[in-house]
Amino acid sequence: MDYEAFFASHLRRLHDEGRYRVFAELERVAGAFPRARFHQDGTVRDVTVWCSNDYLAMGQHPVVIEAMQAAIGAQGSGAGGTRNISGTNTLHVALERELAKLHDKDAALVFTSGYVANETTLQTLGAMLPGCELYSDAFNHASMIAGIRHSGAVRKIFRHNDLAHLEELLKVADPATPKIVAFESVYSMDGDISPIEEICDLAHRYGALAYLDEVHAVGMYGARGAGVAERDGALGKVDIVQGTLAKAFGVVGGYIASTAATVDFVRSCGSGFIFSTSMPPAIAGAALASIRHVTAHPELRVRHQERAATLKRKLAAAGLPIMPSVTHIVPVFVGDAALAKQATDLLMERHSIYVQPINYPTVPRGTERLRLTPTPLHSDDHMERLVEALQDIWQTLGLSLRAAAE
Amino acid sequence: MDYEAFFASHLRRLHDEGRYRVFAELERVAGAFPRARFHQDGTVRDVTVWCSNDYLAMGQHPVVIEAMQAAIGAQGSGAGGTRNISGTNTLHVALERELAKLHDKDAALVFTSGYVANETTLQTLGAMLPGCELYSDAFNHASMIAGIRHSGAVRKIFRHNDLAHLEELLKVADPATPKIVAFESVYSMDGDISPIEEICDLAHRYGALAYLDEVHAVGMYGARGAGVAERDGALGKVDIVQGTLAKAFGVVGGYIASTAATVDFVRSCGSGFIFSTSMPPAIAGAALASIRHVTAHPELRVRHQERAATLKRKLAAAGLPIMPSVTHIVPVFVGDAALAKQATDLLMERHSIYVQPINYPTVPRGTERLRLTPTPLHSDDHMERLVEALQDIWQTLGLSLRAAAE
Ligand SMILES: Cc1ncc(COP(=O)(O)O)c(C=O)c1O
Ligand SMILES: Cc1ncc(COP(=O)(O)O)c(C=O)c1O
Repeated sequence: MDYEAFFASHLRRLHDEGRYRVFAELERVAGAFPRARFHQDGTVRDVTVWCSNDYLAMGQHPVVIEAMQAAIGAQGSGAGGTRNISGTNTLHVALERELAKLHDKDAALVFTSGYVANETTLQTLGAMLPGCELYSDAFNHASMIAGIRHSGAVRKIFRHNDLAHLEELLKVADPATPKIVAFESVYSMDGDISPIEEICDLAHRYGALAYLDEVHAVGMYGARGAGVAERDGALGKVDIVQGTLAKAFGVVGGYIASTAATVDFVRSCGSGFIFSTSMPPAIAGAALASIRHVTAHPELRVRHQERAATLKRKLAAAGLPIMPSVTHIVPVFVGDAALAKQATDLLMERHSIYVQPINYPTVPRGTERLRLTPTPLHSDDHMERLVEALQDIWQTLGLSLRAAAE
Repeated sequence: MDYEAFFASHLRRLHDEGRYRVFAELERVAGAFPRARFHQDGTVRDVTVWCSNDYLAMGQHPVVIEAMQAAIGAQGSGAGGTRNISGTNTLHVALERELAKLHDKDAALVFTSGYVANETTLQTLGAMLPGCELYSDAFNHASMIAGIRHSGAVRKIFRHNDLAHLEELLKVADPATPKIVAFESVYSMDGDISPIEEICDLAHRYGALAYLDEVHAVGMYGARGAGVAERDGALGKVDIVQGTLAKAFGVVGGYIASTAATVDFVRSCGSGFIFSTSMPPAIAGAALASIRHVTAHPELRVRHQERAATLKRKLAAAGLPIMPSVTHIVPVFVGDAALAKQATDLLMERHSIYVQPINYPTVPRGTERLRLTPTPLHSDDHMERLVEALQDIWQTLGLSLRAAAE
């Protein structure tokens, strides 16, 4: 087999379909967010970033930067081992305690990423609970899908946020079989929210565990930032909550929080947890500082929501096709991979605005979009420039206005 | 189903078999390695760490610490997105260039961990090369096994380092089918080394790609620290090399290096790469500084090998049952999970020496061991204390001397 030819032909196909991904090379500038420096072909220029998942700009917060630098000075750059073999650090233990407290659970477990948290937990539970059935929302993130697939468990997909469909599936199952219902709170590409309490109640009625991914909600929803489950008063109904330290908390890493036995089971059996070097102490220290700050500052969440509402209003007023979203995520419809790429290329070239086009497999074909993520640091001025730039590009490319709006 | 009871009963079984894992809580002390502070039940004491995978103590090197702190000051604590969506940083690009150069390849790709690098790459190739067959060394690491399993490809296991068996399997396969032979250079629990050139030649003779995990070798073998393939003059024969930034380089993260098309293919199709926040710029910056330092300082590798040889000599002279190892890894045989745990508990209690017992599933049952990892910073004095402590414990527990030696 000619491997090189095979790879090259696959890559050519991605190019032809307009969905070959070119990564924008950025240099972040602590203190200047949402500004950054964009590097391309040996040139550098200042741009405004409109697609970061550093949702609260905690990635440049002095409290986080100082905690991380201090921990490096004290403890060095790496953990030095897997959690079991010399790689458990005082800062991991403190972070896990803080996360358990945040979600009002007995215990928490930290992974190298949110992806690994989802994949490892669902894979381990799905494989080890005898005869386990996994009920998965149709829009679930790739990391949950990976865990579910790799578990080898029976997989049932329910239509997105469709309680009736989920119940239909649960109803016909053997009541004695172990089951997990896996879903998200905020769906990150559409910005809609699931009915957490209702899904949990349904899961429990049929003897299933409720597994909730709050990756795009932790830090941003609820009085203390524990997520949508906290906002909706459903913290106690979620059996296993999963989150990331890489988005609103501005660092990197992922976790689950649950009962002591559940967490200890995943800790003891999860391959992706056991056989990998633990996160650097300084990463744990930075995350800890960030969580404490975000938890104590609800005004960050108020400002974040206000900024998102303002941006949506301005885009709608300009007739731009914003897709319905009840969260801080603001998707603008394009509907074609090549056009989405052209639009963002022009945004960068003409207006020094960086937005990444979102295409398949991240979203279904035909729903390609720009996904805007306003943060507390995006000013009215930033927004007005963005709206003008989008109007200019929409005109240039003959994109339709209000196509998917309302 | 009573989930809590199920988890609790599984955990009880681990307890009963003496292989319930208790993580030692450490506080690293930059500048004092291999000393660290051990936290337990509210007390703290100084201990000597003998089981770290911070093999060259780069985790506390001023060059690495300064690079990491500087990058945080300049760029903040996190990347802010997946590689595709605002998360590609100048430091990622520079790191990937450096890694490609290190391994004498066209290109490299960085992942959040070595585990994710293995799992994602093997899973992606195994699933996407039509009809792919994966030939896997029987002692391969859990992360490769995960990738191979999850790919759904046909899996053939060859006996550890057994060229004849591998050829037997390859010989009967359809020559037209895509194939990958996956193996390690240094096997980390036994400390033996594979015949890299021979395995690559065999793979190529039968039209297979050679995939080599150099996680326990990068930084430590070869003139520049590119691994055993460099030492053995086989760099050019390995099609895909995989490594970690978390062991000899002292930071965290993983990577592959290969041809441009192979790397671009995995970059474009690997779920565990695409759908996860990229490593913090400061982690990339620290790794870059570490690689440059380690590459330029062969005397680190000389000292490392000398320390390992000295420790083996001292242990053998004391009659302790060291297992055969041709590398820097020094396993001491115990053969029972409960005894291994008792031995390490006593080492800590009586001698303030921290070694983690290695038991199933990390090694086969009946081969439980202590795994010692001497670094350039373990002095003769450290070694003499270790040998005396082991003799004391061996006597206390009635463990046999020279049981598995020679
Ligand atoms: C819903 C969801 N879950 C999990 C993840 C993975 O989290 P992390 O970036 O920490 O790997 C992501 C995105 O990155 C996500 O969007
Ligand atoms: C052979 C081997 N490959 C891969 C890994 C995973 O690397 P990382 O710790 O960077 O996840 C390990 C151990 O951790 C290993 O021993």
